[in-house]
Amino acid sequence: MITVYGYSPSGNCHKLRMLLGHLGRQPDRDFRWIETDSAHGATRTPQYLAKNPNGRVPMIELDDGRRMVESNAILAWLADGTPYFAGDAWQRAQTLSWMFFEQYSHEPYIAVARFICGWTPADSPRRADLPRLRERGHQALAVMERHLSASDWFSATGYGIADIALFGYTHCAADGGFDLAAFPRVVDWLERVRAQPGFVAMPPIAEENLALIARSS
Amino acid sequence: MITVYGYSPSGNCHKLRMLLGHLGRQPDRDFRWIETDSAHGATRTPQYLAKNPNGRVPMIELDDGRRMVESNAILAWLADGTPYFAGDAWQRAQTLSWMFFEQYSHEPYIAVARFICGWTPADSPRRADLPRLRERGHQALAVMERHLSASDWFSATGYGIADIALFGYTHCAADGGFDLAAFPRVVDWLERVRAQPGFVAMPPIAEENLALIARSS
Repeated sequence: MITVYGYSPSGNCHKLRMLLGHLGRQPDRDFRWIETDSAHGATRTPQYLAKNPNGRVPMIELDDGRRMVESNAILAWLADGTPYFAGDAWQRAQTLSWMFFEQYSHEPYIAVARFICGWTPADSPRRADLPRLRERGHQALAVMERHLSASDWFSATGYGIADIALFGYTHCAADGGFDLAAFPRVVDWLERVRAQPGFVAMPPIAEENLALIARSS
Repeated sequence: MITVYGYSPSGNCHKLRMLLGHLGRQPDRDFRWIETDSAHGATRTPQYLAKNPNGRVPMIELDDGRRMVESNAILAWLADGTPYFAGDAWQRAQTLSWMFFEQYSHEPYIAVARFICGWTPADSPRRADLPRLRERGHQALAVMERHLSASDWFSATGYGIADIALFGYTHCAADGGFDLAAFPRVVDWLERVRAQPGFVAMPPIAEENLALIARSS
């Protein structure tokens, strides 16, 4: 049994739930999900930091005690030997390339804008960062839109872990004030992802966070 | 022949020069290095953006026209099948985990602080970001220090691409105002990296950048 420490509203954590769904792994049979509220300090306790000194979710733990952190590395391990991380060395590296793009050029803008809108007080000084985050996030979406003019997927051999990684925060980008209407190929790609066998949607986020998002501009 | 588009003072680009050195690949025989000054707009030309819409270095191009971006993905491809990216699926994913850590929790602080110190004017408003960048960068170095209390290397099976990825900006962290004296295991690890067969040092950076670094606080 794999233990997943995850915060359900986190796109990084949701990636794992998605891939586990595609792979047919069942909650409470094949994996257990330990809800770990990183927005309220659950990753900063001494107990958690002893397991992951970087204090982030997701993290997985195997029955023999081995642990792994970093959402995209966990995807690579779970998908090893499956069609979700397939191809020759060049193709697998191209898949990884989009996953590094996601963590460096996409998540720090699109996920962080969403976090500020929905998980910080309405008067948080961090809201002053939103225009810059949205500018950079739009640049990332433009890079994705351009790629989709020539390819259906970000993973090199068809739908796979690069798509799952990018879906994590792209599908909820509107929470951070991004308008995907300017990126029609991205919108179509999100629909193609949702049509994949075993797709699992992100659980609804809490009223408190929805209310903060509704008040954000 | 592999063509590398790289900016020599960039730690992300230097990673490739290091691995090519370890693999015994010779400049102008096995690869050509096209110096691409990302600090002065060379990655924002229409010609470059046509090849890499994300406008970053490094990028590699093969003789058949195929291209790859993202330094750590390129490392994974170049090292495939070599001792620098070895082990079973779990071990390779652990190596990738440190490479995702590098791009998400290390480079955005340690590399960006160095860039601000050495590549922006002495009166740049971006210098106001330095205290926050240094705080986060120190956190990343503390995570590395702790890992090194139990392991000699970041790559799962011995010296490899996770070490190369982390060496890229750790070895020049002082340029951004980081004092490595507080991280003695990191200092020892840097020395172990420098002792590896085929190690290639980063070329000296320009006087102009050195002068800006010297004036930084």
